[in-house]
Amino acid sequence: MPQPEKRVYDPEVPVDPRVEMLVNDLIGRVADKWTLLVLEELEEHGTCRFTRLAQLVPGISQKMLTQTLRAMERDGLVHRKVHPVVPPKVEYSLTALGHSLGEAFCGVWQWAEINLDRVEAARTAFDGRG
Amino acid sequence: MPQPEKRVYDPEVPVDPRVEMLVNDLIGRVADKWTLLVLEELEEHGTCRFTRLAQLVPGISQKMLTQTLRAMERDGLVHRKVHPVVPPKVEYSLTALGHSLGEAFCGVWQWAEINLDRVEAARTAFDGRG
Repeated sequence: MPQPEKRVYDPEVPVDPRVEMLVNDLIGRVADKWTLLVLEELEEHGTCRFTRLAQLVPGISQKMLTQTLRAMERDGLVHRKVHPVVPPKVEYSLTALGHSLGEAFCGVWQWAEINLDRVEAARTAFDGRG
Repeated sequence: MPQPEKRVYDPEVPVDPRVEMLVNDLIGRVADKWTLLVLEELEEHGTCRFTRLAQLVPGISQKMLTQTLRAMERDGLVHRKVHPVVPPKVEYSLTALGHSLGEAFCGVWQWAEINLDRVEAARTAFDGRG
């Protein structure tokens, strides 16, 4: 009897290939480095203006921040509020969906903190092989 | 009294900026789309040869798969075993560290499955704004 495909999070449930493709696509989008870092800063600091976010996210260019925020807004992760003042004031905050993604990523941040030394050691060993 | 910076995963603990920088760097590396997809396939299918992985990961080029596996090996996530036969047979499997990262990402896969429809709806609404 053929075994159903196994998945990390629930080996009991076979996965619809169409759902798998869509999930892979979505993971590819949200697991973008910049998306993650913007998500983290908005989670940590709450509502932020563009210039503040540009300061908070280390190494991001203005163009990349614009693109990332636009993609996150399109995905429903970020809410963009334009205040009708001169000069225009635009603020960004996480939606409920964005918060839930931030929570889902907790495990990964924790993993990174816990395993930082192991990864560093593996890199040093790898690079030393010559 | 100044508040310590808050983090998603544990609001009680202030974060060392040096650790935060390293974690951000590591997250940027492991949260790469291809790393995630390779991680998922190795978790699902166990030990794989290069050609099998190339079939399993949708849309990955041979060059990108080579780079991804090499980076994952360097980070200590993947074990590369070369069998001394002709032609050479090379097999890849997850290390314990790689498995633990796979587990840490469970929450994100689940999030993606659960919220696929919400993200699709947000995209449709965004694109319809004109």
